[in-house]
Amino acid sequence: MTELVQCVPNFSEGRRPDVVEAIVEAVKAVPGVRLLDYSSDYDHNRSVVTFVGDRQAVGEAAFRAAAKAAELIDMRLHHGGHPRMGAADVIPFIPVSGLSMEDCVELARSTGERIARELGIPVYLYEEAATRPERRNLADVRRGEYESLAARLDDSCQAPDFGPARFNASAGATAVGARRPLVAFNVNLNTGDLKIARKIALAIREKSGGLTNVKAMGVLLADRKQAQVSMNLVDCDATPVYRVVELIKSEAARYGVTVASTEIVGLIPLKYILDATAYYLQLDGFSHDQVLEKKIFF
Amino acid sequence: MTELVQCVPNFSEGRRPDVVEAIVEAVKAVPGVRLLDYSSDYDHNRSVVTFVGDRQAVGEAAFRAAAKAAELIDMRLHHGGHPRMGAADVIPFIPVSGLSMEDCVELARSTGERIARELGIPVYLYEEAATRPERRNLADVRRGEYESLAARLDDSCQAPDFGPARFNASAGATAVGARRPLVAFNVNLNTGDLKIARKIALAIREKSGGLTNVKAMGVLLADRKQAQVSMNLVDCDATPVYRVVELIKSEAARYGVTVASTEIVGLIPLKYILDATAYYLQLDGFSHDQVLEKKIFF
Repeated sequence: MTELVQCVPNFSEGRRPDVVEAIVEAVKAVPGVRLLDYSSDYDHNRSVVTFVGDRQAVGEAAFRAAAKAAELIDMRLHHGGHPRMGAADVIPFIPVSGLSMEDCVELARSTGERIARELGIPVYLYEEAATRPERRNLADVRRGEYESLAARLDDSCQAPDFGPARFNASAGATAVGARRPLVAFNVNLNTGDLKIARKIALAIREKSGGLTNVKAMGVLLADRKQAQVSMNLVDCDATPVYRVVELIKSEAARYGVTVASTEIVGLIPLKYILDATAYYLQLDGFSHDQVLEKKIFF
Repeated sequence: MTELVQCVPNFSEGRRPDVVEAIVEAVKAVPGVRLLDYSSDYDHNRSVVTFVGDRQAVGEAAFRAAAKAAELIDMRLHHGGHPRMGAADVIPFIPVSGLSMEDCVELARSTGERIARELGIPVYLYEEAATRPERRNLADVRRGEYESLAARLDDSCQAPDFGPARFNASAGATAVGARRPLVAFNVNLNTGDLKIARKIALAIREKSGGLTNVKAMGVLLADRKQAQVSMNLVDCDATPVYRVVELIKSEAARYGVTVASTEIVGLIPLKYILDATAYYLQLDGFSHDQVLEKKIFF
């Protein structure tokens, strides 16, 4: 199976296209890296770049992009609506195929160490790569944002995982981590009653007694007159898509409501599709290598 | 989407490995062709080769394999348990991705024409490539086998689609066609009663009032004490896997029997898996390009 890591770094620049292009070019210049997407948000003054490849190529591209961002972005001049603490703000590595989460944790740590050493930028490891429980959650790592960094770095408890605890005024600090692929998934209900969608969201999400790895809220699709359970599934290996759908059906039945349709927003790794098929068809002894295209292409 | 045709030719030689190897080498020598599998059966005295590529490469490889078979196999000396009429006995082209059935029909016809013209072998077109309804079914095309060819070629109604109606004693004749990918699919029942599996097979198969494109029979898995509905699904675009499973569940319920498990034998094209997932998850507006690996690899 072809080794494939996805990297989705966020940069604190969404208003100067030449800067964003320069960062994207730094990524594309690395042999073996495939750029999938990039987009900028003016209000957030922030850009997201998505690329894939083997771990060596992806680690190299992430490093070069961080270096280019440090060269072209001065955090003293940055303002925007999204929490941030550095020019290269967050760099997550995501295992897609042919390597484990542990491999991505290692990649996050080696890349973070290199960014700190060669670029002089404090690096905090987060999510699966975190070295302490209180640093798993990115929101906690980034609390206080760029503006609090100088003070934080004076506090030995808040020392970065890599790099001297010395404030880099221009580049700020970078969070480097490893995480599962995130699946954005919505279930549309045969009701226009938002309260029902909200009750179902509460019932099925991790925060309020439901399934782990599920973030959910109820929203109303006014034009379709349908209430929707809108979700982020953060670990479909442990908590597969089909389990979420079946639990929603079960909770909805209580209100006499059925599922009208569902939607996957953006991309989904093949293995999560195969897991759903294997569940519903009750497939026994099914190997993912039985998918013809998988045998041929990767 | 990468263009991908699968070709699964059958050759009338299963006992001389050097001959089989020479045919396989002729296939592998064509740039752009990927050999997936080949196997020989001694009793049938027959070999099956599976390869894929774009239509140009696959057509070239099929032709070269037919030429090599005609060079090394003498049908006057061939005996085996499987129906056959030529050295290169059948050559089916199967659309996998990026091209239509019509494209494969055209490929079958151009390849068949070339085999007839350059190798002097009578060619019959079958299944989707057939020029007459009575030649769609391969069994009908091959009726009488090699031994009846000389007589058949004297009958103008039985003239081949390509090539002179002149008997080629050494190479015989070749059936060239286009067909859907075939999915070998079994459903295991929570009962050891073979009669129930047989009744379900009768109820769900095309031949006896069930779903079109489904061939089915009941068998007993003695070691597992489970009766099985064993199937070939010959067009999962028109008659998808999930519909077959749901109908079997419904028929089985009549006997108080449930589905214990199912199994896919061999390879299955990705689109059929995605169809099943879309059905069971009730996915709305799902594009196959949302599969991450599809975006990256093909």
